[in-house]
Amino acid sequence: MDRVVIGVDLGGTNTRTALVARSGDILEKQKEETLAAEGHEKVIAKLIRNIDRQRANADQYGRRVAAVGVGAPGVIHEQTGVVVKSPNFPDWNDLPLKQILERELKLPVFIENDANAAALGEQWRGAAKDIRSMIFLTLGTGVGGGIILDGRIWHGADGMAGEVGHMTIIPDGRTCGCGNRGCLEMYASSRGIVMTFKAMCAGKHLDTEGRKEITSAQIYQAARNGDTVAHLVMKDMGRHLGIGIANLINIFNPEMVVIGGGVKAAWDLFIDATREEVRKRAFAYTAERTKIVPSMLGDEAGMVGAAAVAFQKIAKLS
Amino acid sequence: MDRVVIGVDLGGTNTRTALVARSGDILEKQKEETLAAEGHEKVIAKLIRNIDRQRANADQYGRRVAAVGVGAPGVIHEQTGVVVKSPNFPDWNDLPLKQILERELKLPVFIENDANAAALGEQWRGAAKDIRSMIFLTLGTGVGGGIILDGRIWHGADGMAGEVGHMTIIPDGRTCGCGNRGCLEMYASSRGIVMTFKAMCAGKHLDTEGRKEITSAQIYQAARNGDTVAHLVMKDMGRHLGIGIANLINIFNPEMVVIGGGVKAAWDLFIDATREEVRKRAFAYTAERTKIVPSMLGDEAGMVGAAAVAFQKIAKLS
Repeated sequence: MDRVVIGVDLGGTNTRTALVARSGDILEKQKEETLAAEGHEKVIAKLIRNIDRQRANADQYGRRVAAVGVGAPGVIHEQTGVVVKSPNFPDWNDLPLKQILERELKLPVFIENDANAAALGEQWRGAAKDIRSMIFLTLGTGVGGGIILDGRIWHGADGMAGEVGHMTIIPDGRTCGCGNRGCLEMYASSRGIVMTFKAMCAGKHLDTEGRKEITSAQIYQAARNGDTVAHLVMKDMGRHLGIGIANLINIFNPEMVVIGGGVKAAWDLFIDATREEVRKRAFAYTAERTKIVPSMLGDEAGMVGAAAVAFQKIAKLS
Repeated sequence: MDRVVIGVDLGGTNTRTALVARSGDILEKQKEETLAAEGHEKVIAKLIRNIDRQRANADQYGRRVAAVGVGAPGVIHEQTGVVVKSPNFPDWNDLPLKQILERELKLPVFIENDANAAALGEQWRGAAKDIRSMIFLTLGTGVGGGIILDGRIWHGADGMAGEVGHMTIIPDGRTCGCGNRGCLEMYASSRGIVMTFKAMCAGKHLDTEGRKEITSAQIYQAARNGDTVAHLVMKDMGRHLGIGIANLINIFNPEMVVIGGGVKAAWDLFIDATREEVRKRAFAYTAERTKIVPSMLGDEAGMVGAAAVAFQKIAKLS
């Protein structure tokens, strides 16, 4: 019987699970709210139910589930499968997620950082197919990163590599949640975009008047409707992203940089400024040869990549 | 007969060559002025004479030279052994150094970027022994870098990785020779130190009065003699270096950062400021676990590392 795996993208908002064939094809998928605030016990219990349901469904396809791969946000100790710390799950501290899931599921389980998983997904089935060296940037509420070198994730000495969102690009810049100032994340994330907007118009602009909050999506919309300030905000974001990417190009000389995450929706509004900044800052040869492309798998990158992790690991075990 | 290799550090000022045993022990070494300005034909002819002489000497030790490794500055296409461009050798453009040397020497020759070679030297026999992931920074006239991941040099897609000296750390900062602004090199190199000194005292200070130039060595000396401005200059350099190292720690999560090059002579004058900046900026766990240490091999790192390259390559061939 052909073996399949279950790939899980355990996000702060939604949890996605998929039955994935060795080819990378998704046989079926489901999505459910994570409800992280309910605490880790409830979140994990629900995850186990979802996996069990999908495992039962595998029979329909004449397949057997051989392993589970989970992409989770935060600091993951990849070798032990412990979630050390996770900004989206405040009560997850040194949580032995691999151990808990393996005990309940009686299946091999592998935990990977979510950005790393998404990077691997893009390399397996998405924008970076057949690419051996690639930097994946996920621009969402924060900025995450996954580094693929020689076809494999670079985890670092402790599984904590790839924090490209916390590269300093403005030494005296905005204070970041990580304690540093001027992190890339403070300028190239959706949160950073909103901050730049507020700084540029000091509340006196657009439909922000009388409102408490404006969202990044509203800023993209305003820019598309011809609003000058919103346009400048997105160019500013693009330039800051370009500084970070130029650094990564000079450091890694990668074949490709893939950009995913929610902010990818504004691709057309920032990418020209990003490319211009990269041209200005990175070495000409490496800058020209490095493709900067949007992610292709979108919301599916995480679970497909988590499945790739599971396939890679069981191949090593057998 | 036990095989040895010849390791060459082809510098802009001096060329060092050594007979190196498989253990990493240097059997004998020599140093000669490179005289780069005389043009590539003379430089290469002299290099061949030196290698031939050392090869003849190998007989005295009852050894046979099996290969030559050369560390050279600039952009090296490592797989073909072509020097694409070298700031220290203005007339070296797309020079097929490997091919020329192999034809003359009738020996396998391997060319590596000098900073990469030095990194490998430190990992083989120096400060980073038994370390698997390490970033090597060489602070000289410029700032070079070598990245060791999983025990091997990360060359990048085109052999051009490791340009950590051209990471932007001050977006609107000093214009660098590479065309970018605010490169780490413009603040953490000996040239950068002199620039900072000049900017801080605008020529009206110390023994600079009436002089055209002050050297970085004079600035270190002044700081050690209690000069306040010189001290501030070195702290400023240390802080800038710290920004760059914090970025590298967040990106790579390496075990170690090794600092070599001429500026290492001022270690005590900058390292506290560097460490403080790293603590402020990098993730606490990774920052604390990453050892930041001075290189141990000094001037010998390049030729020892070039020998390591040669040994690694012939091991693969046989």
